[in-house]
Amino acid sequence: MQLGFVTAILPDYTLEEVLRTAADIGYDCVEAMCWPPGKAERRYAGVTHVDVSRLDEAGIAEVRALQEKYGVFISSLGYYPNPLGGAPESRQAAVDHLHRLIDASAALGINTVTTFVGRDKDRTIEAQWDDFLATWRPLVDHAAEKDVRIGIENCPMRFTADEWPGGNNLAVSPAVWERMWTDIPSPAWGLNYDPSHLVLMQMDYTRPFRDYPERMVHVHAKDLRIDRDKLDRHGVFSHPGQWHTPKLPGLGDVDWGQFFGHLTDAGYHGPVCVEVEDRAYEGSEELRLRSLRQSHDYLRQFIV
Amino acid sequence: MQLGFVTAILPDYTLEEVLRTAADIGYDCVEAMCWPPGKAERRYAGVTHVDVSRLDEAGIAEVRALQEKYGVFISSLGYYPNPLGGAPESRQAAVDHLHRLIDASAALGINTVTTFVGRDKDRTIEAQWDDFLATWRPLVDHAAEKDVRIGIENCPMRFTADEWPGGNNLAVSPAVWERMWTDIPSPAWGLNYDPSHLVLMQMDYTRPFRDYPERMVHVHAKDLRIDRDKLDRHGVFSHPGQWHTPKLPGLGDVDWGQFFGHLTDAGYHGPVCVEVEDRAYEGSEELRLRSLRQSHDYLRQFIV
Amino acid sequence: MQLGFVTAILPDYTLEEVLRTAADIGYDCVEAMCWPPGKAERRYAGVTHVDVSRLDEAGIAEVRALQEKYGVFISSLGYYPNPLGGAPESRQAAVDHLHRLIDASAALGINTVTTFVGRDKDRTIEAQWDDFLATWRPLVDHAAEKDVRIGIENCPMRFTADEWPGGNNLAVSPAVWERMWTDIPSPAWGLNYDPSHLVLMQMDYTRPFRDYPERMVHVHAKDLRIDRDKLDRHGVFSHPGQWHTPKLPGLGDVDWGQFFGHLTDAGYHGPVCVEVEDRAYEGSEELRLRSLRQSHDYLRQFIV
Amino acid sequence: MQLGFVTAILPDYTLEEVLRTAADIGYDCVEAMCWPPGKAERRYAGVTHVDVSRLDEAGIAEVRALQEKYGVFISSLGYYPNPLGGAPESRQAAVDHLHRLIDASAALGINTVTTFVGRDKDRTIEAQWDDFLATWRPLVDHAAEKDVRIGIENCPMRFTADEWPGGNNLAVSPAVWERMWTDIPSPAWGLNYDPSHLVLMQMDYTRPFRDYPERMVHVHAKDLRIDRDKLDRHGVFSHPGQWHTPKLPGLGDVDWGQFFGHLTDAGYHGPVCVEVEDRAYEGSEELRLRSLRQSHDYLRQFIV
Amino acid sequence: MQLGFVTAILPDYTLEEVLRTAADIGYDCVEAMCWPPGKAERRYAGVTHVDVSRLDEAGIAEVRALQEKYGVFISSLGYYPNPLGGAPESRQAAVDHLHRLIDASAALGINTVTTFVGRDKDRTIEAQWDDFLATWRPLVDHAAEKDVRIGIENCPMRFTADEWPGGNNLAVSPAVWERMWTDIPSPAWGLNYDPSHLVLMQMDYTRPFRDYPERMVHVHAKDLRIDRDKLDRHGVFSHPGQWHTPKLPGLGDVDWGQFFGHLTDAGYHGPVCVEVEDRAYEGSEELRLRSLRQSHDYLRQFIV
Amino acid sequence: MQLGFVTAILPDYTLEEVLRTAADIGYDCVEAMCWPPGKAERRYAGVTHVDVSRLDEAGIAEVRALQEKYGVFISSLGYYPNPLGGAPESRQAAVDHLHRLIDASAALGINTVTTFVGRDKDRTIEAQWDDFLATWRPLVDHAAEKDVRIGIENCPMRFTADEWPGGNNLAVSPAVWERMWTDIPSPAWGLNYDPSHLVLMQMDYTRPFRDYPERMVHVHAKDLRIDRDKLDRHGVFSHPGQWHTPKLPGLGDVDWGQFFGHLTDAGYHGPVCVEVEDRAYEGSEELRLRSLRQSHDYLRQFIV
Repeated sequence: MQLGFVTAILPDYTLEEVLRTAADIGYDCVEAMCWPPGKAERRYAGVTHVDVSRLDEAGIAEVRALQEKYGVFISSLGYYPNPLGGAPESRQAAVDHLHRLIDASAALGINTVTTFVGRDKDRTIEAQWDDFLATWRPLVDHAAEKDVRIGIENCPMRFTADEWPGGNNLAVSPAVWERMWTDIPSPAWGLNYDPSHLVLMQMDYTRPFRDYPERMVHVHAKDLRIDRDKLDRHGVFSHPGQWHTPKLPGLGDVDWGQFFGHLTDAGYHGPVCVEVEDRAYEGSEELRLRSLRQSHDYLRQFIV
Repeated sequence: MQLGFVTAILPDYTLEEVLRTAADIGYDCVEAMCWPPGKAERRYAGVTHVDVSRLDEAGIAEVRALQEKYGVFISSLGYYPNPLGGAPESRQAAVDHLHRLIDASAALGINTVTTFVGRDKDRTIEAQWDDFLATWRPLVDHAAEKDVRIGIENCPMRFTADEWPGGNNLAVSPAVWERMWTDIPSPAWGLNYDPSHLVLMQMDYTRPFRDYPERMVHVHAKDLRIDRDKLDRHGVFSHPGQWHTPKLPGLGDVDWGQFFGHLTDAGYHGPVCVEVEDRAYEGSEELRLRSLRQSHDYLRQFIV
Repeated sequence: MQLGFVTAILPDYTLEEVLRTAADIGYDCVEAMCWPPGKAERRYAGVTHVDVSRLDEAGIAEVRALQEKYGVFISSLGYYPNPLGGAPESRQAAVDHLHRLIDASAALGINTVTTFVGRDKDRTIEAQWDDFLATWRPLVDHAAEKDVRIGIENCPMRFTADEWPGGNNLAVSPAVWERMWTDIPSPAWGLNYDPSHLVLMQMDYTRPFRDYPERMVHVHAKDLRIDRDKLDRHGVFSHPGQWHTPKLPGLGDVDWGQFFGHLTDAGYHGPVCVEVEDRAYEGSEELRLRSLRQSHDYLRQFIV
Repeated sequence: MQLGFVTAILPDYTLEEVLRTAADIGYDCVEAMCWPPGKAERRYAGVTHVDVSRLDEAGIAEVRALQEKYGVFISSLGYYPNPLGGAPESRQAAVDHLHRLIDASAALGINTVTTFVGRDKDRTIEAQWDDFLATWRPLVDHAAEKDVRIGIENCPMRFTADEWPGGNNLAVSPAVWERMWTDIPSPAWGLNYDPSHLVLMQMDYTRPFRDYPERMVHVHAKDLRIDRDKLDRHGVFSHPGQWHTPKLPGLGDVDWGQFFGHLTDAGYHGPVCVEVEDRAYEGSEELRLRSLRQSHDYLRQFIV
Repeated sequence: MQLGFVTAILPDYTLEEVLRTAADIGYDCVEAMCWPPGKAERRYAGVTHVDVSRLDEAGIAEVRALQEKYGVFISSLGYYPNPLGGAPESRQAAVDHLHRLIDASAALGINTVTTFVGRDKDRTIEAQWDDFLATWRPLVDHAAEKDVRIGIENCPMRFTADEWPGGNNLAVSPAVWERMWTDIPSPAWGLNYDPSHLVLMQMDYTRPFRDYPERMVHVHAKDLRIDRDKLDRHGVFSHPGQWHTPKLPGLGDVDWGQFFGHLTDAGYHGPVCVEVEDRAYEGSEELRLRSLRQSHDYLRQFIV
Repeated sequence: MQLGFVTAILPDYTLEEVLRTAADIGYDCVEAMCWPPGKAERRYAGVTHVDVSRLDEAGIAEVRALQEKYGVFISSLGYYPNPLGGAPESRQAAVDHLHRLIDASAALGINTVTTFVGRDKDRTIEAQWDDFLATWRPLVDHAAEKDVRIGIENCPMRFTADEWPGGNNLAVSPAVWERMWTDIPSPAWGLNYDPSHLVLMQMDYTRPFRDYPERMVHVHAKDLRIDRDKLDRHGVFSHPGQWHTPKLPGLGDVDWGQFFGHLTDAGYHGPVCVEVEDRAYEGSEELRLRSLRQSHDYLRQFIV
């Protein structure tokens, strides 16, 4: 396995600064954010460390050279839009940009793209299944052709009132994943697996590694804590932002020893990228860098 | 405390048959279903053991006489519609019928009505708060004038796809109750408290008895079991009908000894009515009667 | 469901005395021990309440009449030998006697036989599988012809040094049961399911009712307690008699509410027979009768 | 075992009324309170159902006749003073009265006395050990001569500010009991064992029955609940009345099935007497009677 | 946050040796012990790394220079006497010396003093409240004037017979703290918070950080283990030295990940000082240094 | 304590390569495998890093020099045969080779030998006790004469069908150890204690350090995970290889903080050697080295 981080936590850095920071701390890799240049629509979005919309030969050469210079590789090109929700033009833009990520990932020799499948938050999953298939079959086919694997993050994207009721990503549970893989069985896609989302949804976060080892394309290391007193006030059907707190790895409810135990048994040898969404470490650049150092040191006891 | 049952489980019995059955088994009371005569719109609904739409002096005398004859009293008039959701005429019909229940409960000397506040399932609670207040202020005022107390059941009414996303009853958590009581502070309303709903929503079901003892108007005794294997497949944001099973008291996850420990400490001396929704006991009249006998015997160890 | 007891606890009673005792206490049924007349070879064995070796028409009529007289029925004919271990002649005698039980159970209209499959305790299960099939295929075929179902108790029969190493019954786990049912798929056999054996073997005792509801022929209600201090001295690979204590239902580690919750969900409507092996209640006839009364009263909260 | 209750909960009843009540509910026995006539010094004290200070032949005959009349026997004479604390004259009075209880218990053929050893609450146990021995050696010797056994209740008598710091009874833990039995080894004394006190002190309440079965003279059945929220505010070194609630058996933290499992394994066949100190059931005679009925019915599932 | 240690573990070192050791291991800071020069009255007391009784301009300059030289700062001046218990002159001496610590802390630009409030161990907290206020109001006022904050350690100082019954420090629980802050509301004082004391007292050690983040002046990192077997022998009302063992961070019952999770959420950015009281690491200078190295390395996974 | 590893994981390295690797990673010591040269009979066996069968003066000098050169010492000579099971000549060969290990360990100044006592797997421990004593008395005597201590690993050697039923090592539990030490009380032997075997056998793995600190000769650091789903299928009496997974320290069920807490309290200051049997880290030399690095870094937080 290789230890990395998701570059969204350093939005104002250039790719070179990101890679230098990674090297300084001791990371092996980064998941490079590749949003279309422009204004972010939500926290953690809108970061562009590799601009795939205009990646020419020179750009490719530069990205390759930077990785080599700092001894830090890019584990995946990441972009987390909602290709199934919102206005038709924004959905189409998301799909178009995902095609560009696939191409860029192949061109760069990274061969991995990490993203959301999206969701029309106002409909049940059942009701939008045909739309989902129509959108994703061509994307998965494209990835397969380019020898790229897509890792879908299992995030519910349903924390606050504006994401209510269904959230912006439907790939949240084994029941849904199995249906996805039954209907689009291509090995060109799987999960960008983040155990913290299963903690939030009160699920066993070690089981998917036993059940679908071959679908584990990429791994996010994020932690969170269920705040029992607050859950007692609101219940699990309320906005979950009210009763949990995202935390750095080791400061929440994930038992990382057990998690890495199962992950190694599953034969996973890919990247594990820290995703920082701990508000206690977002107040300044100094704190953000500290969060990367602390997460690195904590996880290194399991990834040597 | 008095031990009773919710009469919905005996839809084809007359009131006299219900009371005779209660007496035979040993119950002290029943919560009498008072739906408007007509076809049920969902399971457990549409049962009419007291028809409040045409309750004249003779009817009142008869209901009183039957209670005396069998030594079983009616703890509450129950009716569980959705006064905040659905077509305007059906919402209005629900409100009108609730007014009739209040009048009937006063006339019968029962002085308790048990129901749902309802919900527009397609909107957040925040978004419909004004509608909620406009609907419920007059109902609570009416109850106060008639010296009747309304017990709102804390059921999310959100188990299956057709109740998605918000469910048909918004009074589901301490956070919501406190807002209800802040905005309509009348002591004429409180809860028809059912601990099983808090088990479903992963909440502490003993705390409300400590925090709001004076709001405990009536109690339902239902149990349920969280099916861990199924929850691991779906997560708590899916339709909860997929990962829990309603059960008779004693066959699920509620610790009834602890529950009654807190309930007695809170000084609760009112009715506790068994609500049977255990599919394993619904296949025949014999099984339904058996469910009432078993629940009675089980709960009698805590209510003598 | 019907509540009964295994008659081995009253070895000196006649069948009529057994049935009268059952009726007096309030049991619905008994599992009648049918060992060949003669000396017991171990504790709890060698009891003959119905002598199937000489059951003629008159005998049949008498057994039927006694059941009717006391309103207590016989849920199964029980006999727990080792048809796979020991001397060839004793193995053959066990098989022959089992054939007689099948015939008698059909003739009496009971249609259930409860027993062990046995085991050569000195060989692995793998090593004796062919012997097992050769012995049991004809027995299961015979039962099918007679419209009798055989319930195999899931007891390891491996508690003390003389049962070491393999125990005297191989049908101890889902892994073994599935292999049994794959190789002899007849619906004429299944389990006489006793949850306490799974507690001893550190297994989930509710899962089999979910996984194989159709194989649940009969149920034993026995409890036991793992004695942690003693287990800490010996470990689970030692003789388990050193670190557990058989107890009456409700005095051990089985959560009977959860157990009956799953059992009712599985649609089980058959007999549940108390098996008393609690040494604290075996010192006198008075204590044995007390054990039957207490177990009856305890389990009645779940079987009305 | 025999099920009884401590008569202190019916202070205004005559002995005959107490025995009649016990018979009506179904109790086998009572522990009769035998305080010297006069004003109670604290809650639950000062009750005199048998006045041992003037028990002549006629009195003895009457007490025996009443037991026979109602079929309810007296399991012990109970009196819970502090023979080691307070003014010298009150200590001497306690000792003198205990001698009278021993004589009366022998004369009545009950042969059991239940009490506290007492404590000078202002000194450590170490500091008062000599006083303790000087006081208790003669009492135990007297009991031995009269063939009476003394059961010391293991209550810390340390709940509120006025019992601070040491409480009024030092016989609270295995460490202390062992020292008691080493220094006064007579078999004429042992424990009136109440599991709830060990719950309060965060101890394993099943172990003493394994470790000292021969010292179990009498058993109290009381329950209590640790109130976690309150304990979090005060900690275990504060007055424990602030963070626990005494409850009826089955409404607190004692696991009675496990408790009776160990008690039967220890070969205990003596009385188990309900001690009601649940404030929720003390507000009226009706509630007190209800508490006796409910405790009886709850415990009967373990004592038939 | 900054990682440091309490200097009492190196009693024979000069301040310079202490700071050099801290630097060598990698600590950011130390809490410098400032007992009056002289003989220690108990274990861990009587250490003088900064002698505030004769701190002149030169001394101040030297202390500042040493911090700079080694790049290790002094997080607080620490002194843990009992200003409320013992002989009047020793109480007065403690108060006088605390005033000197406040002055020195201001002069050194440290602006923090850490100590106990003390207690008359022979009286309840209620009984000595007025004395407590009379002693502490002037101290807190003095601190406020000097812009120094006082952190009171929440240690019960009640482990052995000679500290019985009440211990030598009354600031042990939220209930007491709230009363302190109500009666002396100055922001110039708060806690020197040590989670291990709450483990000992069976309390939630994460809650205070949620409830009073603004009162967290300084943090001690000590761990301890509750020894269940010993607690089962003695109970929580006995001398707690009998049933717990102080341990280095990570070797006891504190869940440091959860603790630091809450501490970061509370916005705490101050010092966290290891306090070594683990007897297994006190036998030699080599072991004491090892304890500092190990604690440093263990806690660095949470404090980067 | 000193941190080391068992050299069996590097079977193809010379002793010098092993020591260099240890030094590179940061280990303090190694347990050197000393099997007789030749073919391994099972996984992890047959490794010869010190060939004691021909260790002359030059060899001794070389082994000493290598330890000095790399600053890594040999904590023990290890060899794990079965001196009680199998063919007589292989048993004798094992005994003879153990004598050679004792001599070599003394000659090298290591003074520790680590091994199994062995077992005739086809007999109960009781049945072979005399054989056991006859075999081991001379070995322990020899060790005592040479001032060498023998550490017996507490491994059941009973994981798969070919080790069924009794396993190849009988020294598995406190009950057996105590009998060993009663019959051969020499202080020249004790345990090579591995907590993971107690996890497998569902035992408390911290208690032996409290109960027999003086018998702790050497410690193995291996971890394992009980796989609940698989245990539910097989039960604890089946081949345990079916329901557990050996893992690196920190990736299994051992709580290492608690373990080292007890180990330090017991005054253990000897070696702790990582034993790698985690299949996920055995596929290549790179993975094996990684396993040693990761285990080192993980355990260093407890052994500085």
